[in-house]
Amino acid sequence: MNERYERGLARQRELGGPGPVRARAYDSLDDIAPDLPRLAVEFAYGDIHARPGLDAARRELVVLGALIALGGVEPQLEAHLGTALDAGLEPGEIVEAVLQALPYAGFPRVMAAMGVARKVLGARGLLPVRQVP
Amino acid sequence: MNERYERGLARQRELGGPGPVRARAYDSLDDIAPDLPRLAVEFAYGDIHARPGLDAARRELVVLGALIALGGVEPQLEAHLGTALDAGLEPGEIVEAVLQALPYAGFPRVMAAMGVARKVLGARGLLPVRQVP
Amino acid sequence: MNERYERGLARQRELGGPGPVRARAYDSLDDIAPDLPRLAVEFAYGDIHARPGLDAARRELVVLGALIALGGVEPQLEAHLGTALDAGLEPGEIVEAVLQALPYAGFPRVMAAMGVARKVLGARGLLPVRQVP
Amino acid sequence: MNERYERGLARQRELGGPGPVRARAYDSLDDIAPDLPRLAVEFAYGDIHARPGLDAARRELVVLGALIALGGVEPQLEAHLGTALDAGLEPGEIVEAVLQALPYAGFPRVMAAMGVARKVLGARGLLPVRQVP
Amino acid sequence: MNERYERGLARQRELGGPGPVRARAYDSLDDIAPDLPRLAVEFAYGDIHARPGLDAARRELVVLGALIALGGVEPQLEAHLGTALDAGLEPGEIVEAVLQALPYAGFPRVMAAMGVARKVLGARGLLPVRQVP
Amino acid sequence: MNERYERGLARQRELGGPGPVRARAYDSLDDIAPDLPRLAVEFAYGDIHARPGLDAARRELVVLGALIALGGVEPQLEAHLGTALDAGLEPGEIVEAVLQALPYAGFPRVMAAMGVARKVLGARGLLPVRQVP
Repeated sequence: MNERYERGLARQRELGGPGPVRARAYDSLDDIAPDLPRLAVEFAYGDIHARPGLDAARRELVVLGALIALGGVEPQLEAHLGTALDAGLEPGEIVEAVLQALPYAGFPRVMAAMGVARKVLGARGLLPVRQVP
Repeated sequence: MNERYERGLARQRELGGPGPVRARAYDSLDDIAPDLPRLAVEFAYGDIHARPGLDAARRELVVLGALIALGGVEPQLEAHLGTALDAGLEPGEIVEAVLQALPYAGFPRVMAAMGVARKVLGARGLLPVRQVP
Repeated sequence: MNERYERGLARQRELGGPGPVRARAYDSLDDIAPDLPRLAVEFAYGDIHARPGLDAARRELVVLGALIALGGVEPQLEAHLGTALDAGLEPGEIVEAVLQALPYAGFPRVMAAMGVARKVLGARGLLPVRQVP
Repeated sequence: MNERYERGLARQRELGGPGPVRARAYDSLDDIAPDLPRLAVEFAYGDIHARPGLDAARRELVVLGALIALGGVEPQLEAHLGTALDAGLEPGEIVEAVLQALPYAGFPRVMAAMGVARKVLGARGLLPVRQVP
Repeated sequence: MNERYERGLARQRELGGPGPVRARAYDSLDDIAPDLPRLAVEFAYGDIHARPGLDAARRELVVLGALIALGGVEPQLEAHLGTALDAGLEPGEIVEAVLQALPYAGFPRVMAAMGVARKVLGARGLLPVRQVP
Repeated sequence: MNERYERGLARQRELGGPGPVRARAYDSLDDIAPDLPRLAVEFAYGDIHARPGLDAARRELVVLGALIALGGVEPQLEAHLGTALDAGLEPGEIVEAVLQALPYAGFPRVMAAMGVARKVLGARGLLPVRQVP
């Protein structure tokens, strides 16, 4: 347990813990590549997410934009939509963030991402989302 | 000049005008597809960016994440890094936003994006960026 | 119900209606982002697909090329393969269109797309496809 | 000179020859990988493009959709926009084909592609393109 | 049965046969596009994989890198992870190869690929993988 | 100067130093994000490339596959083609590695990569490459 891992873990806890999606993904790698979840905690959280200079909610907006554009990364999108909520973004703000990717990533990527958002918000009892007028 | 175009144009003006990068890109299409910049103003700004429910700076963070992950979209990245500054993000926050894409989009996409950020900040006399401690 | 939405809806009806894949996708967003299917009808159909200057079947060939290359967009691919048939493309022409993406998008994307084509043609009783000699 | 190569070359000639963009790209590989342009002629043209069952212009529409969505493939886009013209597509139809990718590939990819189309049409004295009303 | 097809088939047999994943994928296209698996054997194996100058195991490392970065190509990744084992790569080497893509393709693509590797190694009774110290 | 940075730097030196392409890229970020090249050395080289269990040449084959498939990452491709040579791959092996990506990443990505390979080999006086018979 090095300092970067500790910092990454602390950051994940601040944001509501790794959460069940990440925990399952991490555990599933135990018998093949236990270094991979360790590297994720150390690098993605310890080295990057825990940096000062931009708050967690705004970091998650960048991550959402990147994941929507990449496509085909549903587990990460599901985990980060949960983190975005834990970092204080409101359901309506998350819907707007996903829509904001439309002109750049196109409808197919955004419709897929909105389906994942629906799953995450539904699991937390946050549906229906009140629409902006 | 329909209502969506007017709303899109007003949104762009709020954010410092279309800016020289966008203006040049739009003008260059005059003799081939003048509808394309019109559609960009109407849809990307009038329909999407001007929606309530998420402020302009946070919308730009989603856009930056998407553009970094897409790759090969330097003109749009240049334009949106300018818009991000005009929407109130500090140079140091923009650097953090670009770094936040690292675990998801990888080093090559992020190094390319940081090069574009350097060009945009340099053109506004905002270099060197004061590093977070 | 604005003019663009009406034009988009009319265009979808000309092409056999939104179809069950699109209808399900649209309906599933009712409690999270009803604006997203509305934007799809307005922009993708009302603003773009309904433009004069290129017939529907040829528009669908561009869309198929783009969706195959994007990858990971099976629901849209399924919907547009149906639209391509409704726009008058023959099953054998659709098979050729998918194969035509091979040198540019590679075997994995094309094999995935052909699997979706098989599902769409099968559901309409159009298998086996008569091969070109 | 095998049969597939001959068929590929014949197909390229039918479509106005390989054209200067492809010829330059092919020649530039002489001292490193002369098999690569040979494979392109054999596979992309001899095996795929020369197949019956879909005419050349419609094949080029699929290719344009794929190249626009891939992004960062300007030399191929330039070559295939020329082939699309040689296969009988009108300048206005090519503009519509590029616009048709907008809802799927997004504005940045389409604006880049339209810039390449402008270069190709300009080099043939086909600008300005008469707009659809 | 032409020479390239024979050479491709021989190459696949050298590498343990097409394997059940490829065989199922190929067979499933019988009633829609039997030319597609034939083209895969001829081009991907007969023209490319069977070339001299780089051994099969090292060819598979390039393929793994490409498939991880593409994303959303699980059937091919599963097939090529099997081929990589058949070509002599050890389970621990395959884990390292997948990890090596991390800085370039990012965590989401690599975590998805590691999940597929786990499935392939598990099916061959090769789990747990002994970790490098 | 932490242990990971030292290990990363040592790894780069083993492989012929960071090389002029990387050095220029790293230096250019001095006034905007000096942490980015530090993170590259620590993570990409110290954490990943320096791991035991797969030799450097084979790691570079994975990296080449990933970079070819990503597209639009010429500076990294140029740097890693140099590293691949420094790790002991022969020019002819590098040409074969690039060709091996063809069935998966398609001709446009591979032709672009071969152009970069030509530049790297030419700068080292390694052209023409002797072709496999």
